[in-house]
Amino acid sequence: MPLPELDLIERIRRRAGSARGAVRTGIGDDCAVLRGSAGKDWLVTTDLTVEGVHFRRDWHPARAVGHRCLARGLSDIAAMGGAPAAAFLSLALPRRTPQRWVDEFLEGYLALARRTGVTLAGGDIAESKAGIVADTMVLGTVPRGQAILRSGSKPGDQIYVSGRLGGAAAAVAELRARNKRTRAQHKQNRLVWGTPTYLFPEPRLALGDWLGRRHLATSMIDLSDGLSSDLAHICDESRVGAVVYEDAIPMADRGDKALEFALHGGEDYELLFTAPARAKIPPTAGGGKIARIGEIVRSSGMWLVESDGRRRPLRPLGWQHFGRNR
Amino acid sequence: MPLPELDLIERIRRRAGSARGAVRTGIGDDCAVLRGSAGKDWLVTTDLTVEGVHFRRDWHPARAVGHRCLARGLSDIAAMGGAPAAAFLSLALPRRTPQRWVDEFLEGYLALARRTGVTLAGGDIAESKAGIVADTMVLGTVPRGQAILRSGSKPGDQIYVSGRLGGAAAAVAELRARNKRTRAQHKQNRLVWGTPTYLFPEPRLALGDWLGRRHLATSMIDLSDGLSSDLAHICDESRVGAVVYEDAIPMADRGDKALEFALHGGEDYELLFTAPARAKIPPTAGGGKIARIGEIVRSSGMWLVESDGRRRPLRPLGWQHFGRNR
Repeated sequence: MPLPELDLIERIRRRAGSARGAVRTGIGDDCAVLRGSAGKDWLVTTDLTVEGVHFRRDWHPARAVGHRCLARGLSDIAAMGGAPAAAFLSLALPRRTPQRWVDEFLEGYLALARRTGVTLAGGDIAESKAGIVADTMVLGTVPRGQAILRSGSKPGDQIYVSGRLGGAAAAVAELRARNKRTRAQHKQNRLVWGTPTYLFPEPRLALGDWLGRRHLATSMIDLSDGLSSDLAHICDESRVGAVVYEDAIPMADRGDKALEFALHGGEDYELLFTAPARAKIPPTAGGGKIARIGEIVRSSGMWLVESDGRRRPLRPLGWQHFGRNR
Repeated sequence: MPLPELDLIERIRRRAGSARGAVRTGIGDDCAVLRGSAGKDWLVTTDLTVEGVHFRRDWHPARAVGHRCLARGLSDIAAMGGAPAAAFLSLALPRRTPQRWVDEFLEGYLALARRTGVTLAGGDIAESKAGIVADTMVLGTVPRGQAILRSGSKPGDQIYVSGRLGGAAAAVAELRARNKRTRAQHKQNRLVWGTPTYLFPEPRLALGDWLGRRHLATSMIDLSDGLSSDLAHICDESRVGAVVYEDAIPMADRGDKALEFALHGGEDYELLFTAPARAKIPPTAGGGKIARIGEIVRSSGMWLVESDGRRRPLRPLGWQHFGRNR
């Protein structure tokens, strides 16, 4: 039987219980925060990348799989306002994995690591019985007590996002449609597919750092599951609600589904954060655009104000780890 | 094509190159060592556990899989002379994984975590297309600069092991034989199989801590791949050779293959270490037995002195991650 109700994270959280020790913030944020010494906290995040779930070898070049594998962890560090330091990579590979695939995967992973000052410090390798599984862990640091959590939003805070949303979902939809149309064309996907941002997302480290240093953000999360789901995480952890204005959302796509992609599409790896109304958030920071898309409210629940002014409930319909939507 | 020649770790090591930054010791030891502040270094280790490679659901109770998953990381921390602090668990699960399996896996994992003072601080979960894959990361600490590496052995050092060797290999061989004999009996494996040590290995944290505090060991590694392979790691990293005395090896098994199991069988999770000849290593420490089994020599290569006094080359025939032996 399928297990959409398998809420493992919640179970682990309940069982792990209260014995947190040196751990300041555990399961339920982008990173765990471990108390360091001499004014520093450590951030730790792990991300699984599974063939057939997170990538397909015929859709994603190996270099892009390696890049995205690390980018997911870096994006989590950015979302805490931290700086990445070291990464660990565990790879389970089927016996027949071509050497070239592994080489290109590593090239993609290590190119991003070098560019962001991250040392690949260790890892593990094992045989996989079916499909490639990569698990990467990124360690980062943040000044003590200054990690930006999901739980700090207050009613009246304004909601901001970086970049444009829905681009990754649009790229996947386009790829899927193309794949249906013709098998011959399908083989050309790597050549014709003009979505470098989707394949090589840029983690918003500079913006995360910029916000962290200025103590401007009350909550932050990276947009990996999708705006509706990631905003719901902030609302849950902060025990607040949110109102989002359709017209204010910066959309990457221009098609019929642009709003749907922007609201519920995952893998954009932009930052979603809240800041007090009095905070001065400029239109660009850390090398990217910032848009104000709504505000935090006292009553629970999320609402979307449409272009014509009507309000409708905004449900978290982004990525569900064991859900029915993908 | 199969890839026994896929030496990924070596490739990563070469490519990761010199940009180590805060990382004192990276790929190639039981743990990476990260420079902490205020007199502390951090230890990090990751271990993959793959269904069909490291366990079989019909052989290993879920509780044992969870226990072993964490025990592997704790054993790496012990082998550096460190104390474990926090763990992270990434789980890729097929859709049809029974809830009960996941619950029991977590019970085994968390029971060992509680007993060893480790906090499960985070993780990730994803769908797997085939088979369960668990990756666990353990973070530990050690006084600054005092992690016990693989690279410190000097000619004249004596070689020691804790506990008895070959028990895990004997248990697997017995299970395999039983499995061939009858399918009906096969179903009873969980009941008749009297090898709790194999199913629930006890990481030698107390011994690792004991050796670390007294600065007695020049090198240390945990016996996960098998004595011959793990001793080869110490010889390679220390650029020395070794002589081992057959009669001195504490064997777990009493059968025909006892020596083979003790030399080349993996997964015993005992500690293998070297200490100067003048160091006083007692016969028991940290709650377990210690046996002196040989000595480090200047010339490269490993030798086994048999019961009758003959010397033969000792080849590393333990676990090979993409090898032909399993």
